[in-house]
Amino acid sequence: MKTVNDYREIVGDKIISDLYKKSRKLSGKSVVHINSTYYGGGVAEILSSLVPLMNDVGLDAGWRTLRGSPDVFSITKKFHNALQGDPIHLTSIKKKLYTETNEDFSTYTHLDHDFVIIHDPQPLPLIKFYKRKQPWIWRCHIDLSHPNEKLWHFLKGFILQYDDVIISHESYRNNIPFEEKIISPVIDPLTPKNMDLSERTINKYLHKYKIPTDKPLITQISRFDKWKDPIGVINTFKLVKEKVDCRLILCGSMAGDDPEGIKIFENVERKANNLIEKGDVILLNFDNNILVNILQRISDVIIQKSIREGFGLTITEALWKETPVVASNVGGIPLQITDGEDGFLFEPNDLDGFAKKIIEILKDPEAYKEVGKKGKEKVRNNFLITRLLGDYLDLLNETLDCR
Amino acid sequence: MKTVNDYREIVGDKIISDLYKKSRKLSGKSVVHINSTYYGGGVAEILSSLVPLMNDVGLDAGWRTLRGSPDVFSITKKFHNALQGDPIHLTSIKKKLYTETNEDFSTYTHLDHDFVIIHDPQPLPLIKFYKRKQPWIWRCHIDLSHPNEKLWHFLKGFILQYDDVIISHESYRNNIPFEEKIISPVIDPLTPKNMDLSERTINKYLHKYKIPTDKPLITQISRFDKWKDPIGVINTFKLVKEKVDCRLILCGSMAGDDPEGIKIFENVERKANNLIEKGDVILLNFDNNILVNILQRISDVIIQKSIREGFGLTITEALWKETPVVASNVGGIPLQITDGEDGFLFEPNDLDGFAKKIIEILKDPEAYKEVGKKGKEKVRNNFLITRLLGDYLDLLNETLDCR
Repeated sequence: MKTVNDYREIVGDKIISDLYKKSRKLSGKSVVHINSTYYGGGVAEILSSLVPLMNDVGLDAGWRTLRGSPDVFSITKKFHNALQGDPIHLTSIKKKLYTETNEDFSTYTHLDHDFVIIHDPQPLPLIKFYKRKQPWIWRCHIDLSHPNEKLWHFLKGFILQYDDVIISHESYRNNIPFEEKIISPVIDPLTPKNMDLSERTINKYLHKYKIPTDKPLITQISRFDKWKDPIGVINTFKLVKEKVDCRLILCGSMAGDDPEGIKIFENVERKANNLIEKGDVILLNFDNNILVNILQRISDVIIQKSIREGFGLTITEALWKETPVVASNVGGIPLQITDGEDGFLFEPNDLDGFAKKIIEILKDPEAYKEVGKKGKEKVRNNFLITRLLGDYLDLLNETLDCR
Repeated sequence: MKTVNDYREIVGDKIISDLYKKSRKLSGKSVVHINSTYYGGGVAEILSSLVPLMNDVGLDAGWRTLRGSPDVFSITKKFHNALQGDPIHLTSIKKKLYTETNEDFSTYTHLDHDFVIIHDPQPLPLIKFYKRKQPWIWRCHIDLSHPNEKLWHFLKGFILQYDDVIISHESYRNNIPFEEKIISPVIDPLTPKNMDLSERTINKYLHKYKIPTDKPLITQISRFDKWKDPIGVINTFKLVKEKVDCRLILCGSMAGDDPEGIKIFENVERKANNLIEKGDVILLNFDNNILVNILQRISDVIIQKSIREGFGLTITEALWKETPVVASNVGGIPLQITDGEDGFLFEPNDLDGFAKKIIEILKDPEAYKEVGKKGKEKVRNNFLITRLLGDYLDLLNETLDCR
């Protein structure tokens, strides 16, 4: 089980000692995190690192997942998309199933903790079904900049009951009618997705997944999703390919229950058909953290041509591997990249800009090593799990002081 | 949320009043159930009924699920099969992943309940990682009559630490080196799988799933699994079909990750190819509780030609619907059926016996209505969720008395 000390070599003694200091008043206090799943997705990933570390610094930190039927989770998936701006047919049966799922769960989930932290909309209504004995915090990991109005109005009925609301980004704040805190996401440098890997492991995976390394490599790691603009990546690659012989990898897992993802994947396959047959474009549809880690390490450039982006943890991961990143100037990306300093930013529709910069990097990779190094330092100082742990300890201390 | 009172009309006032009596000394005591999943499979199904009812009679009953990676759950699936007699390559990495998963979970799962009830092998090692402050009970739902010796030896290392072990059937007892209790499984008459349905709902589903009702119907509800002998069912049906024009439905959900199930399904398809094309045999591969409920109600005969069977809850479900059942005399089936009284039993290889009885029933369904009625009474008196709740209350009371 991970301990805070494991991060000492990465973040230095001072950070570790600060974490212990921040936890002193919280020692023995109990906190419970509730989200919708133990596996799959960024929230489960962060909690799987955060919760053990909270215990390690002396809190009694628990982690529960909401019980919901597949039907209910397909409704909350629609909620998720609608919070990001999609239309939704918000029927009373949807609201009822959602609320009842939380009520049912509350009957056999006894919360006598000192703090309750609810993640994302799935377990949001829980607060309605408890006699509140402790501070309740809602931690929303979703892009809230363009929420569907009707849904937002409905959800606010629950949100308003919370003591604190945490969002990921400044730009989500406009719609929240009360003070909220901003905590940006982080990566864990010790997970399979980010840890250092031996040459042997890397070669084993390259062989297994048949990834050639004879030409320079450009990679985008992203779900096959319109907001990630995979077609735009293909078109950018065509421009690059005119000047430098190289390969493009698009790597993204695809849930079997995501018909839109499958459609987009097939569309990309059609559009890039010739390039795929020649082996210049490689589409990978695996959900393997070590593979992602390796691609981020061996690529000459990581591209992220998103049209919209929440925070963009794939950028954080790539920066951590010292690989130059060329990305869209949207969402949380400019929080992570200072253009020309530790990466490169272009407007999403500026294909020429993307292509020109990628060509420059591929032609003279040595010249961009420094950029990669600075990217890693940016992440080390701002976007590692130890910072998140500190943020939560600060928040709990503040909440304690206010009581 | 379900309450014990909802069952009053089904089981009568006496049973309900007994449940309240049994719960008096337990009022306010806390108990936590831990299993591996909130959805899918019989254990989750039973807990989704049992846990709310335990709360309803005055206990603080909680329900948690173990966090495990897909890799670990594929290991515990192998354990499950090996406990039922399959061979297993029990490597130290398997043991390590299994044990560590439980250790990890224990670090953020604080158990200060009055009773801990662990279901099946997945969370079995948890006991090793707690300072035991309360009785721990291991409830095993698996057929333990022929466990793989090496695995059993390994698991006993954990089992021996428990205060109580509950198994489902007398015949599993031979391998357990200490006293254990037998609690046979039950069904919940108020779930979608067992509740009464309106004519309108039934017709809607029959239409949706294109199920014809112009000929007498024989149905087996079972996974496509060698132990359920689907090929034997097809061969039995051929014998019946020589005498009575009728149809056979084989209905079983099939997990996408079960390659053996897919192979068996395809084998059945091949073997019954002509009959399927003529529409005389219908294979349904859906996991829909209401569909199962309807098939059990509209069929003229339910067949269950298992070669091995744990308890056989599909039998219990069918009996509850007053449909005559013709089944193998194996495992838990004879506990539920008294041959000639409330159903019919044959040795698994006695195809002629099966066929002859089915023909008799199809030829004179009226004559077998009484058998169906008696089947329902057997279930009412022995295999409903209220009985299980009572068993658990008894167990907790006893445990309390021993302290």
